[in-house]
Amino acid sequence: MIDVLIIGTIGYDTIETPFGKRTNVLGGSASYASIAASFFAKPGMVAIVGDDFQKEHREFLESKNVSLHGLKQVHGKTFAWGGKYEFDMNEAKTAFTDLNTLLQFDAHVPEEYLDAKYIFLANTDPVLQMKVVEQLQQPTFIVMDTMNFWIQTKKDALLEVIKKVDVLLLNDSEARMLFQTVNLLKAAQEALKLGPKYIIIKKGEHGALLFSDGKHFSAPGYPLEILKDPTGCGDSFAGGFIGYLAKNGKIEESALRKAIIYGSVIASYNAEDFSLERLKKLTQKEIEERYQEMKEIREF
Amino acid sequence: MIDVLIIGTIGYDTIETPFGKRTNVLGGSASYASIAASFFAKPGMVAIVGDDFQKEHREFLESKNVSLHGLKQVHGKTFAWGGKYEFDMNEAKTAFTDLNTLLQFDAHVPEEYLDAKYIFLANTDPVLQMKVVEQLQQPTFIVMDTMNFWIQTKKDALLEVIKKVDVLLLNDSEARMLFQTVNLLKAAQEALKLGPKYIIIKKGEHGALLFSDGKHFSAPGYPLEILKDPTGCGDSFAGGFIGYLAKNGKIEESALRKAIIYGSVIASYNAEDFSLERLKKLTQKEIEERYQEMKEIREF
Repeated sequence: MIDVLIIGTIGYDTIETPFGKRTNVLGGSASYASIAASFFAKPGMVAIVGDDFQKEHREFLESKNVSLHGLKQVHGKTFAWGGKYEFDMNEAKTAFTDLNTLLQFDAHVPEEYLDAKYIFLANTDPVLQMKVVEQLQQPTFIVMDTMNFWIQTKKDALLEVIKKVDVLLLNDSEARMLFQTVNLLKAAQEALKLGPKYIIIKKGEHGALLFSDGKHFSAPGYPLEILKDPTGCGDSFAGGFIGYLAKNGKIEESALRKAIIYGSVIASYNAEDFSLERLKKLTQKEIEERYQEMKEIREF
Repeated sequence: MIDVLIIGTIGYDTIETPFGKRTNVLGGSASYASIAASFFAKPGMVAIVGDDFQKEHREFLESKNVSLHGLKQVHGKTFAWGGKYEFDMNEAKTAFTDLNTLLQFDAHVPEEYLDAKYIFLANTDPVLQMKVVEQLQQPTFIVMDTMNFWIQTKKDALLEVIKKVDVLLLNDSEARMLFQTVNLLKAAQEALKLGPKYIIIKKGEHGALLFSDGKHFSAPGYPLEILKDPTGCGDSFAGGFIGYLAKNGKIEESALRKAIIYGSVIASYNAEDFSLERLKKLTQKEIEERYQEMKEIREF
């Protein structure tokens, strides 16, 4: 029995930042989101890998209590992505994207996950996201992420998925692109009209905004001294967010606000090292300490 | 007897934003900062204008309880500035700068202001800022602002002023430029080493950060639905900030945090209309309402 169903990618990343380079390290939205969620609840992932997927990585995920019943392994190479961050670390420039076995991904939800209550549709083709939604029996709470690529190439399919979810996650540039306004408040108001009860706009170092009908929450960014690799921060944020909500068991404004802070905390740790290195060592005590710090930095 | 001494510019602005155009409207750092401060305390300004300075504008400032003993009127035209904001409203593109009588500005502090306790050195030539500091008898609290132009052209003089002040205000791009790092936390740590007890980094719609020795405060941006003209927001922020502190009378971390929120509130109203139009109509009740809202959007 899992608490959170996560559908997304597992990949091997080759990453270059001003602080170093790593080749073929574990990455992908489902990896980051699952590990992040695992600090609060039991995640199960729906993803696909090739036969080069390393035993060490499977064991790492399992050691963190991530269910892998929905992980399909097929003949071929695992999805691989290469990216480079410049000095400002804001956005990765993609060096290469080798879809490989991801082309065979059918987003099939295994029997034992069909009654999952908390769902995270990580960034992937909206057609696959919709396919997951249609398989679920009675989801309580669906969170979805997306990216500019889908806004540009599959906007109609994307809008259909948005109608079905409880929370839409966007970063600020995606929100501006999707609703053609620079004003994030207006973008969020337009997004709410499509159906979701909540819109979360991620602003990187500037924190995150939560919008719901007539309400607004502004989460601070955690001031990072060490920032080595922002890859997976959005997915870690989402994983921490939904993991906390699944653990909490109640969907209400105050819980969502706390969940956003927990998501921010996990994401902030994630950026401190490459790949999943920092999350691998992260402790509950560290999470609680930084959560407390997030309270203090916005007290007035 | 004034509570806050403000040295800066009075100018006639010609402004174009996606929401309209205004020609020769009242502007300048000292105008915005004084009006903003006047909601909390009595400001006195040190500035210069030409003989085209309109009676209506003098009367407006006086009606808001701004002391004009330090306002020198000389033969010639008042400083004039033209700027245009593009779609994203983040930064003005300067169309023209006519210094005019500003070239004769000597930053002379009149006798009756010499014992002022709270000082705001608005953005101007650091040589003039230093001249003001040297004239003061026993300032309690000096806040300074600057801009990229002075960082690029008079960095040494600027660093000398920074050593003398209690608070250095920078926007995020200035902080990054001055300390050659993208990491705002590191920039602030470098700035603190120069002498100021507090560094405030303004991030526009993303709010503001306050850094002091070992402490950090993150103020949210107010989510504006109407944003017509951001001109003067930095100065309104600073004016509200120092005005509140002068009224409060105590310099301590908790007061500075509140002062930043009041400054943000005044700045957010300022952006809702051109020139000083919105601040002209602003009420204490509206200030308190938005202050309360700033608390609520941060609660978790």
